[in-house]
Amino acid sequence: MKKSICLLSGGLDSSTTLFVAKSEGYDLYTLSFLYGQKHKRELSCAEELSLIVGAKMHRVVTLPTPTGTSLTGKAVLPTDRTLEEMSVEIPTTYVPARNTLFIAYALQFAEEVDADAIFIGATAQDFSGYPDDRPEYIEAWQKLINLATKKTVSGGTIELKAPLLHLYKAEIVEWGLELGVPYEKTWSCYAGGSKPCLECDSCQLRIKGFKEAGQRDPLVDEITWDRLQKIDNRYRLV
Amino acid sequence: MKKSICLLSGGLDSSTTLFVAKSEGYDLYTLSFLYGQKHKRELSCAEELSLIVGAKMHRVVTLPTPTGTSLTGKAVLPTDRTLEEMSVEIPTTYVPARNTLFIAYALQFAEEVDADAIFIGATAQDFSGYPDDRPEYIEAWQKLINLATKKTVSGGTIELKAPLLHLYKAEIVEWGLELGVPYEKTWSCYAGGSKPCLECDSCQLRIKGFKEAGQRDPLVDEITWDRLQKIDNRYRLV
Repeated sequence: MKKSICLLSGGLDSSTTLFVAKSEGYDLYTLSFLYGQKHKRELSCAEELSLIVGAKMHRVVTLPTPTGTSLTGKAVLPTDRTLEEMSVEIPTTYVPARNTLFIAYALQFAEEVDADAIFIGATAQDFSGYPDDRPEYIEAWQKLINLATKKTVSGGTIELKAPLLHLYKAEIVEWGLELGVPYEKTWSCYAGGSKPCLECDSCQLRIKGFKEAGQRDPLVDEITWDRLQKIDNRYRLV
Repeated sequence: MKKSICLLSGGLDSSTTLFVAKSEGYDLYTLSFLYGQKHKRELSCAEELSLIVGAKMHRVVTLPTPTGTSLTGKAVLPTDRTLEEMSVEIPTTYVPARNTLFIAYALQFAEEVDADAIFIGATAQDFSGYPDDRPEYIEAWQKLINLATKKTVSGGTIELKAPLLHLYKAEIVEWGLELGVPYEKTWSCYAGGSKPCLECDSCQLRIKGFKEAGQRDPLVDEITWDRLQKIDNRYRLV
């Protein structure tokens, strides 16, 4: 049985990626991180999703809380930005070297359980402008992995797979619904509340995905969802 | 003032590298790791060396203890191996993805303090057969760094420097002595005792370096050192 490490924040993209890995027949080892994020609620989603897919193990690694990001600490999150604004500059929600650390830990996990692949939910279409989500970044990592481990320098392979890399959010939602992703058990909002704020970059992108897929986000009640359809000026991504 | 992150285990190579970075005029930020290694004594050396060079900060990151290595846990360390034996296969002291994790953390630290360089004491001449110490590995990391961070995709650079990469151990010792490295305050032995075991790979390579440089290792008393000169069969590296 092929094994894969699945980086799983519990958000829209990584949850969908987990179900893609499952559909490809891998034994699943999920990996999540606690790094002082305001939205640590996502971790209970990651735990529940790991149980639902029958993961062999769900590992949660605690990292030192990084500075220089609005995802942790008291800095204010950006809200109400258009997709154009998101694509122009790297936002304050950028966490220094986050995906680099995440993939490094996934690589260690892969060596420990002799996994064949690492799945990451990186997306480069409707995305938040993070440098460590782009195709050339993923490709550079694959080259590094090929040189970095006992397995890969001894004739084996560890494939870094980012199946959502070239998909738009609506395509991700459509694929996930086909695969049976229980989106009501996922969490994307950065703000740290008990309901999605509907204003941060992550909420905006999620709403865009569900709207364009012609589906209601199950985390948003029907009345609010209807209201969201009408205020396109505000949700300028639509 | 240029800033650098210096990966510092407290061993021969990383301590020398620290003094190289100092001689190049960098402000120094040292970074060490506690990962369940038997020889955690090296960390107090790293702390003292950081004070000696006047580091701006010494950060110690605690990692989950990895499995599948004799550097942690109860597995027995290999001893008494020749350099040929070391070069043939990756030893049990290999820690899965260790340098990959170390450099990922260094990259995060570099972004946080806006550093210009990361120094690592990787050596590929007299080395222990680790895949993550080779020139092609370091080069692949540089390519990844160039794509990975806010700074490097915005026109800045973070240089990964491995000044010892092509040096033999004796050359490292000679350079370090010129730079004033207090080798009596460094620690290389893997075994976890209060004196160097003189048998593990790391001790063997260290002894080789000092011998070939015509110097006594200050961690070894004169009587023992004289004895080491005579038993070349045992210390077959010489």
